[in-house]
Amino acid sequence: MFFRMRKVGGAPKLRLRVAPNVSSYNQTFIGNKQAMAEDTFKSSDSVRSGRPLRHVKIFRHDKPLKLELGGQLPEVTVAYEVYGRLNATADNAVLICHAISGDSHVAKHDEQDDAGWWDIVVGPGKAIDTDKYFVIGPNILGGCRGTTGPGSVNPAAGRPWGTDFPTITVDDIVQVQKLLMDHLGVRRLLGVIGGSMGGHQVLCWSVKYSGMVDGAMAVATSPRLTSQALAFDVVGRNAILTDPDYRGGQYYDEGPRPATGLAIARMLGHITYLSLEAMQDKFEADRFRPRDVPTEFEKVFSVGSYLAYHGDKFTERFDANSYLKLSLAMDLFDLGSTPEKLAKSLAASRCRWLVVSFTSDWLFPPLQSQQMVDALIAGDKRVSYCNVTSGCGHDAFLLRDDLGTYGELIRAFLANLSAPDGRPPAAKLSDSDTIDRRPTSIFHDQRLDYDMLINLIPEGATVLDLGCGGGSLLAMLREKKCHGLVGVELDERAIIACVRKGLDVIHADLNRGLSQFRTGQFDYVILSQTLQAVRDVESAVAEMLRVGQKCIVSFPNFGYWKLRKMLNEEGRAPLGGLLPYKWFETPNIRIITLNDFEDFCREKGISVLRRIALDTEAGREVVEDPNSNADTAIYVISG
Amino acid sequence: MFFRMRKVGGAPKLRLRVAPNVSSYNQTFIGNKQAMAEDTFKSSDSVRSGRPLRHVKIFRHDKPLKLELGGQLPEVTVAYEVYGRLNATADNAVLICHAISGDSHVAKHDEQDDAGWWDIVVGPGKAIDTDKYFVIGPNILGGCRGTTGPGSVNPAAGRPWGTDFPTITVDDIVQVQKLLMDHLGVRRLLGVIGGSMGGHQVLCWSVKYSGMVDGAMAVATSPRLTSQALAFDVVGRNAILTDPDYRGGQYYDEGPRPATGLAIARMLGHITYLSLEAMQDKFEADRFRPRDVPTEFEKVFSVGSYLAYHGDKFTERFDANSYLKLSLAMDLFDLGSTPEKLAKSLAASRCRWLVVSFTSDWLFPPLQSQQMVDALIAGDKRVSYCNVTSGCGHDAFLLRDDLGTYGELIRAFLANLSAPDGRPPAAKLSDSDTIDRRPTSIFHDQRLDYDMLINLIPEGATVLDLGCGGGSLLAMLREKKCHGLVGVELDERAIIACVRKGLDVIHADLNRGLSQFRTGQFDYVILSQTLQAVRDVESAVAEMLRVGQKCIVSFPNFGYWKLRKMLNEEGRAPLGGLLPYKWFETPNIRIITLNDFEDFCREKGISVLRRIALDTEAGREVVEDPNSNADTAIYVISG
Repeated sequence: MFFRMRKVGGAPKLRLRVAPNVSSYNQTFIGNKQAMAEDTFKSSDSVRSGRPLRHVKIFRHDKPLKLELGGQLPEVTVAYEVYGRLNATADNAVLICHAISGDSHVAKHDEQDDAGWWDIVVGPGKAIDTDKYFVIGPNILGGCRGTTGPGSVNPAAGRPWGTDFPTITVDDIVQVQKLLMDHLGVRRLLGVIGGSMGGHQVLCWSVKYSGMVDGAMAVATSPRLTSQALAFDVVGRNAILTDPDYRGGQYYDEGPRPATGLAIARMLGHITYLSLEAMQDKFEADRFRPRDVPTEFEKVFSVGSYLAYHGDKFTERFDANSYLKLSLAMDLFDLGSTPEKLAKSLAASRCRWLVVSFTSDWLFPPLQSQQMVDALIAGDKRVSYCNVTSGCGHDAFLLRDDLGTYGELIRAFLANLSAPDGRPPAAKLSDSDTIDRRPTSIFHDQRLDYDMLINLIPEGATVLDLGCGGGSLLAMLREKKCHGLVGVELDERAIIACVRKGLDVIHADLNRGLSQFRTGQFDYVILSQTLQAVRDVESAVAEMLRVGQKCIVSFPNFGYWKLRKMLNEEGRAPLGGLLPYKWFETPNIRIITLNDFEDFCREKGISVLRRIALDTEAGREVVEDPNSNADTAIYVISG
Repeated sequence: MFFRMRKVGGAPKLRLRVAPNVSSYNQTFIGNKQAMAEDTFKSSDSVRSGRPLRHVKIFRHDKPLKLELGGQLPEVTVAYEVYGRLNATADNAVLICHAISGDSHVAKHDEQDDAGWWDIVVGPGKAIDTDKYFVIGPNILGGCRGTTGPGSVNPAAGRPWGTDFPTITVDDIVQVQKLLMDHLGVRRLLGVIGGSMGGHQVLCWSVKYSGMVDGAMAVATSPRLTSQALAFDVVGRNAILTDPDYRGGQYYDEGPRPATGLAIARMLGHITYLSLEAMQDKFEADRFRPRDVPTEFEKVFSVGSYLAYHGDKFTERFDANSYLKLSLAMDLFDLGSTPEKLAKSLAASRCRWLVVSFTSDWLFPPLQSQQMVDALIAGDKRVSYCNVTSGCGHDAFLLRDDLGTYGELIRAFLANLSAPDGRPPAAKLSDSDTIDRRPTSIFHDQRLDYDMLINLIPEGATVLDLGCGGGSLLAMLREKKCHGLVGVELDERAIIACVRKGLDVIHADLNRGLSQFRTGQFDYVILSQTLQAVRDVESAVAEMLRVGQKCIVSFPNFGYWKLRKMLNEEGRAPLGGLLPYKWFETPNIRIITLNDFEDFCREKGISVLRRIALDTEAGREVVEDPNSNADTAIYVISG
């Protein structure tokens, strides 16, 4: 027989694993040196066993805490860990907000310490460098790893809260984090960062305590869950609530805990954290070979045994009531379902933003990050955005695989926040900084083109640079005291280079429009040496003209006499000539002459305010017969 | 308070709805005229209440049935419905295979009849036209709507099988359908069609009874589930198996049924049937306004109340043991995890194929349909494939929204199967048949280009036409007794036009390679008037040369004197001249002259076997200075 099915329903349930008593655990686990059940599995899903946290600190707030949806908690305890030192000017603090199942143990404190859930990002020399920054990792309100939650004793009742624990929100969670900051003497946060539900906390911080946050880093998160993600949470909660062992949430003192329901909820959640591709890679080859793990659940398929193992493990370290309360807090989080509402929700934010999504994340899809970015742009916030190419799904923010991009973005973003305003970052430049714009670039010296562009833009103007590459032109414009500078770029490495330069850059495809920008938002919009590579020229130009008061377009002139001669005398595609590409490989898919472009402007009712024709080989402007004698054209146009 | 949470776990479970006793139901429901609980909801998910099926027929096979994984059933009963009449030549039968929760009631038998689950596709004048075809809809083995399943009485034990019902496979299901065909005197099946798990049955039919099937229509299905889809099934089964009311599967005689577990499994399944977008559209606006449905489950969010309602409803008409057995049968279905294994699995198939996927289906993603298509092509099967643009997710095959494409494909495919071989179908041609190839088309009379192409191809050759449009060229080649004719096309409407012509056409993007075709598979590969619109020319040409013994490439010559003159004398892009596009909108993104193409061939080591230079305006071949005097070039090349 090539599979086997354990029969479960008929026999009395075996409870192979009994979760620690969470209520007493919450009171006593701190400093307990006795290691709990050995954690023998290797996993990519950041699940860890319920070991004692040796470096955890406790802050007790012994006054009542009013809650957003009504009611109050009579007192709050916060478990947290800190890394690095607060500097003399108290401006190097970074707050880490964990996701639903995380805790205060963000990273190792020393080599002997247990692994933290974000060791890859936080530590000496890492992206969030604990040699530079004072890093704070609190366990969130409602959790079960030291901070007040449903497993804590309700003083009025003399027993754990259970289901009587009030419904909490992300706002409440953040309020408690703020109390901790006050306790620690942290008055400014250089950065607040979090992924998934941790990102919800970041979003909340940025508006609730807007005066206190310099930089917000929202990773793999959303303004509110998709209906799909919400639906998965609902099904997970139903599994817990209908577990007979749930017993109205008062299971702490004796008898079994609702481990079956919690494990089912976790298994379901686990699927949503992984991408389709990641699951194929992991389970496709040995589909019918389940691992021999001790579990009550079905063990027919490898993926089933894997999920069962991690589902069971989860119940050892996590409290079902915490899962219910925290997943509900996440589901209730809502910055708005329309662009207008979302922009309004984020209007109070005054920090700089780094928004990161992952291409294969279907639980918090990139589109939702883009909606946040759009809302931030609509509110004139300073924001950079990157949709990191990843096959790892939602879990990507916890994995080393994609650290090369998102880790570098975090590092560069923080470095610029701590650097003097408007100056290049202290961070060491690497190869990717040398990447510069326009792979479609033209004949000779690009510098002449740049100089001309810069001369066309008055000091103090706001500028959008489309296809900004590594940001060289924007950096030059910054030197010229231009502000409101924004780049749009498609290449991830170029985006890192921009963020290293302290520039605001949006990861977007020009061919999909500029709907994130307001009509007339910029004094100037630049499209330098890119028009000839644009698929939908009409829409792109129309969008530029909508967004900018004036637009500057430069492109190689295919009317240039050397190119004409090539086609005319040699009978060969002019693209294959002076340009560095052959006909079959050139990204230059549009043939434009000065005449063509001017015909186009006439036809579309576009005003040509100025034309500069350049002979870049000779290094000068062309006056006579520019359609023949210029190899490059620069136009200033308006709608 | 803007939400409310029903507390469930603490109180004894309310069983608001008690499912009919399935075992007796299986024995008695047929012909029962008393309507069961009124079905009051409107839904897109094809869920229907447990009404009696007035037109159901019963076939009893009273001999033992051996099962694929061992063991046997002592007897089998099959509930089925039929539509239309078997014709005199007995060659108009179409078998409908239902998905996990379907039944024999495929469509209404008359206006007074209850809705069927596929009324949109099956009926008089519909895609599967019951005026033409004899349509058979059996309930599948293991189900709970009349055909033998876990709720049927095990004669040896004198009580329902429950969990003792043997593990069945798709192969067993199909074996039982074959017994029904024998009983009905159906020796040939013009078509076998099914979506989702119904598609698995189609795949099985095509190889198990390969001599009996003329046409296989596999809709929204896969060679085996993705690991992700499998994982969702596992979690659903775990919810049922751990429901205390499951009681080892022997819940039929008294006491509650495992309705909670089954409802949770169904809720989870329901999410996977819908696309992200469809759920957003349905639930985003009124997220926090749950519907007031009677349910034990959480009612905080609209999506939750919706899922709970349908989950509860499902338990009224479906048996938990059937769900376990059928979902396991689906999960065990496996035609192979590698292209080689898959091709081997399908090697025995001798029918023509129509494979349809839906772009937003993430449970049975289009990539899996493409893998099947690749395997069929690798085995020289005749197959057409379309990835229908849809926002509806996996459920798309049950919805009217996308019927315009998939319904038309089914209609046209069946019409051609029943038409005399090699002749155009009887089906009425519509607008989309007039669509023809090459939106990038050239200067003058395309007919000359076609005639030349056809003359280059010897009678009896096998031909692949890349960018085949509505299939005119392929249809002409068919007249010339060419065979093994296959088209590749990107446009859905053009694909319908090809299928109407009885041609085999694959929905694919030329820019993504031709990996589905074998090296040297075709005598000729044609790329007519398309090269200039191809993004990755090198790969496309390399792939053509790999797949074809010889390749024929035709393209507009940008060395043509009128075009040269345009650039040279007028200083305007030659693309804007004689061709019907302007520089900013042309799909012709590559500038090619005869010289350029010949340089390219030389550089890449490609042999030019023949060159035909055409002046299509004059309607003749050009001999002198073809790079200047021809507006069109045709090359025969080989690798």
